[in-house]
Amino acid sequence: MANFKGHALPGSFFLVFGLWWSIKYPLTYLNGRIKGKRSSNKFHKRLELIEGVMKVVFTLIGMLAEQFVPDGPHLHLVSGDHGWVKLMNWQHTTMYFFYGLSGVVDILTYFPLNFPQGLDRLSLALAVFIEGLLFYYHVHNRPPLDQHIHSLLLIAIFGGSISIMIEVFLRDNIVLEMFRSSLAILQGTWFWQIGFVLYPLGKAPEWDQSDHENIMFITMCFCWHYAVSLIIISVNYGLVYWCLKRNKGLAGDVTIGIRKLKSNNQGEVQTALLTASDEE
Amino acid sequence: MANFKGHALPGSFFLVFGLWWSIKYPLTYLNGRIKGKRSSNKFHKRLELIEGVMKVVFTLIGMLAEQFVPDGPHLHLVSGDHGWVKLMNWQHTTMYFFYGLSGVVDILTYFPLNFPQGLDRLSLALAVFIEGLLFYYHVHNRPPLDQHIHSLLLIAIFGGSISIMIEVFLRDNIVLEMFRSSLAILQGTWFWQIGFVLYPLGKAPEWDQSDHENIMFITMCFCWHYAVSLIIISVNYGLVYWCLKRNKGLAGDVTIGIRKLKSNNQGEVQTALLTASDEE
Amino acid sequence: MANFKGHALPGSFFLVFGLWWSIKYPLTYLNGRIKGKRSSNKFHKRLELIEGVMKVVFTLIGMLAEQFVPDGPHLHLVSGDHGWVKLMNWQHTTMYFFYGLSGVVDILTYFPLNFPQGLDRLSLALAVFIEGLLFYYHVHNRPPLDQHIHSLLLIAIFGGSISIMIEVFLRDNIVLEMFRSSLAILQGTWFWQIGFVLYPLGKAPEWDQSDHENIMFITMCFCWHYAVSLIIISVNYGLVYWCLKRNKGLAGDVTIGIRKLKSNNQGEVQTALLTASDEE
Amino acid sequence: MANFKGHALPGSFFLVFGLWWSIKYPLTYLNGRIKGKRSSNKFHKRLELIEGVMKVVFTLIGMLAEQFVPDGPHLHLVSGDHGWVKLMNWQHTTMYFFYGLSGVVDILTYFPLNFPQGLDRLSLALAVFIEGLLFYYHVHNRPPLDQHIHSLLLIAIFGGSISIMIEVFLRDNIVLEMFRSSLAILQGTWFWQIGFVLYPLGKAPEWDQSDHENIMFITMCFCWHYAVSLIIISVNYGLVYWCLKRNKGLAGDVTIGIRKLKSNNQGEVQTALLTASDEE
Repeated sequence: MANFKGHALPGSFFLVFGLWWSIKYPLTYLNGRIKGKRSSNKFHKRLELIEGVMKVVFTLIGMLAEQFVPDGPHLHLVSGDHGWVKLMNWQHTTMYFFYGLSGVVDILTYFPLNFPQGLDRLSLALAVFIEGLLFYYHVHNRPPLDQHIHSLLLIAIFGGSISIMIEVFLRDNIVLEMFRSSLAILQGTWFWQIGFVLYPLGKAPEWDQSDHENIMFITMCFCWHYAVSLIIISVNYGLVYWCLKRNKGLAGDVTIGIRKLKSNNQGEVQTALLTASDEE
Repeated sequence: MANFKGHALPGSFFLVFGLWWSIKYPLTYLNGRIKGKRSSNKFHKRLELIEGVMKVVFTLIGMLAEQFVPDGPHLHLVSGDHGWVKLMNWQHTTMYFFYGLSGVVDILTYFPLNFPQGLDRLSLALAVFIEGLLFYYHVHNRPPLDQHIHSLLLIAIFGGSISIMIEVFLRDNIVLEMFRSSLAILQGTWFWQIGFVLYPLGKAPEWDQSDHENIMFITMCFCWHYAVSLIIISVNYGLVYWCLKRNKGLAGDVTIGIRKLKSNNQGEVQTALLTASDEE
Repeated sequence: MANFKGHALPGSFFLVFGLWWSIKYPLTYLNGRIKGKRSSNKFHKRLELIEGVMKVVFTLIGMLAEQFVPDGPHLHLVSGDHGWVKLMNWQHTTMYFFYGLSGVVDILTYFPLNFPQGLDRLSLALAVFIEGLLFYYHVHNRPPLDQHIHSLLLIAIFGGSISIMIEVFLRDNIVLEMFRSSLAILQGTWFWQIGFVLYPLGKAPEWDQSDHENIMFITMCFCWHYAVSLIIISVNYGLVYWCLKRNKGLAGDVTIGIRKLKSNNQGEVQTALLTASDEE
Repeated sequence: MANFKGHALPGSFFLVFGLWWSIKYPLTYLNGRIKGKRSSNKFHKRLELIEGVMKVVFTLIGMLAEQFVPDGPHLHLVSGDHGWVKLMNWQHTTMYFFYGLSGVVDILTYFPLNFPQGLDRLSLALAVFIEGLLFYYHVHNRPPLDQHIHSLLLIAIFGGSISIMIEVFLRDNIVLEMFRSSLAILQGTWFWQIGFVLYPLGKAPEWDQSDHENIMFITMCFCWHYAVSLIIISVNYGLVYWCLKRNKGLAGDVTIGIRKLKSNNQGEVQTALLTASDEE
């Protein structure tokens, strides 16, 4: 769907997930700080399940939309005269499929099937990587601005993929999780931006796709999107903190609990190592 | 051997190893979860030995085939008039040699020669890297589709090399091992795909090697291969789990054993760190 | 500000921070070695606060200077006839903004708001990365020497960004901190060098921007800058050590304290692991 | 010194260091396994000191040779008419300088000056990186074979730099140390190979520098060099093991000592983590 909607739809998905993560992770992080370990938390696990189901549902919608829109391929891959049918839609279907797979792994992780820990993160990282791979070869032979605006997207995509890959080994690390949230929001808003630039709505003027000034502006605009994304996750973190403090009735309780745990965890990795060596 | 067989042969080797790993690692992982540490397991060690021997045998076959096929170099490197003889076959021989070396290290690791742990993984990672290096310079001056289809192979190769390199430091990590298995299967099936595309069998039509649509399709096709590979390793994991559950007679036994160990190892790295800091 | 001052100003900022870090980190490191953990140190925390405030002040000055110099954009982004206004100044403003954001996170980390540890490092790494990103697209369509001299800067920038990213996980690692200091000093002096080369002062002759010899010299010159930077941080380390030794009155005290702690921490990571495994 | 000697000299330095490391590290590793921790070992520390001194001496020789050979720059950088004097020699001098710096840090680490652990590794990694950086820009505007043969060298150089960088955090890891040794030997022999290819000795015929076959052969030849390098370090490891076994009189002693420690250290990182989590 090489039009405005085809960019707004995935953009919205990423935005929703980014915003959701920017609330979920501070919530489970601060909750965990009070009550103990996060992973053993039932509430946290159920959230993961819901997320998995949502992923599967959203990607199914995306796949069906790509296949069965009026100008879609309707599951035909090869036409009679040996040409490929609507490869763009098939590529998007492929991207959605891998996100769906990641959703399935999230669901399987919930049930007591002894799925190794970390596979859910790995499958998400792979889905993001596949998205990046397809985009990378997607933009050959396009005008400079089109290429540039998509290659900026690749930074958010591959950055996200690497960051999630690290989460396989450093699970439940709040910094990585917030970083992931911020990159998801960035992807979301940037998809919208691509839509606005390449398919101007209404009577907005067309962008000159080979103007060097436009390319310079778009680079900077990408940074502003990220600045906004960072501000959004900061605000959400603040809201979650404030809500938790209010709801628990005794603000002090939360704070003390957090403080106690925090002082135990100053520079988590480092502390663990120092502790270990202090025991000699 | 720039023909269909020359791609089908290595493809089959990788496929066999990928499938084998996708059974071996879940097996030793689940077994280890019940009985304790994996590495000290005699059964596991013997499997590694057999694998090393198989590697050496397979690569010897591959090397001999590359050298002594009718149109091979028969161990001649330089011909009389200072031209190189059959460099392609020599390159393939070189690739096989490094895999053979990795097999030798596997065997040496088995015997009580005090070989440092991790050298077997390092030598495998190096073999995969050398394969990637040779392929990288292999495809210069070829038609676009040929280059593209090989460069996608490089993703699987270098991805595998990096992942095995991490195993040097994070040994016996089931997620990394399953990731490696999936990449090996991907390499295997992709070698076959390259064979089919570049040397169409029977009366199949030739591919237009400079058509942009074909390149786009091949990119997507690569993703589908990986999707199939992921599904294969999931199914194999499920089969192994189911077999272990049946064979042990008491399904509960396994599950409890696993559960117990699993709860100790939720997010292994993280737990260790948190545990260490809790002890302060 | 594409002139000498526009390079000297940021160069001075980086130089000041690099020099400051090359004193602060050895100080807190050696102090911490004597008294115990570093992070819990009030003095250290206050230093971080002051640093955050300084960052915010400096970047505000930078942003205002870029916007309100006589030939600046004065906060106008689009002029009437749909051209962009002074994009260069806007890009610099964006760079300063992200460093300012990092300063704000430093300040928030000081107050008891339960900001997760590591976010301050992450935000600094992101600021450096954004700087690199903007520079990367900054230098297209320039003469070879101009491109080359900026691409060398990118090595210092991205090297710094990666190194700070690692500090998210390995906080308070003196080697990483000194590496960061050295790269900051390198950036600082290199900005000055760029200014001297591209905008020769006074009656100095212009550089031939497409001479291959000049490019070769500049590469080497970059290495010399780094050599000087390394020597500066070594000297500062020595000075700090010497001062601490004098001030404490009893030189032996410091040395013994340090020695005792040092022997506990030989190769911190390794020791921790060995220790842990010795306890079996 | 763009001639055979100019490649043979640094090649010999790297070869000597690679061979020396391939004996030193197995020695200290196996010794450490018997007697306890390696780092606290006086013998090991003295070896490091000697190595540092040797580095300084060798690089001084290299620097003086580059400056004061008959056609050298004799410390002149700029000639009267504003041209650069013998930049190639100056670049080589710069490379040697950074290796010398690394030697100085090795020496300082020996004395009780409280130099942070890991700085010696960092300075070595930086020296290797600087070498790679200078080589990278060194080979522009050369014939294809010349470029290719140097770019293969870059793989050994940057691979080594990354590996040493990891040693900053994972000190005394025998696998990394043996990997480093193998890359140093590879660099050494490859420098000689470059000399033979670009400046054929005696009556050997010139290489056709733009023949694609030659480039393919050289790639493969690089792999063979590495194969030889791997075999050399394996043989040296075997020799060291055999000597230690003989010298200690009681072969069993060594083996038992090693076995005991080895079983404690199966997959060092992993064990540590599992141990930590077992203590819950």
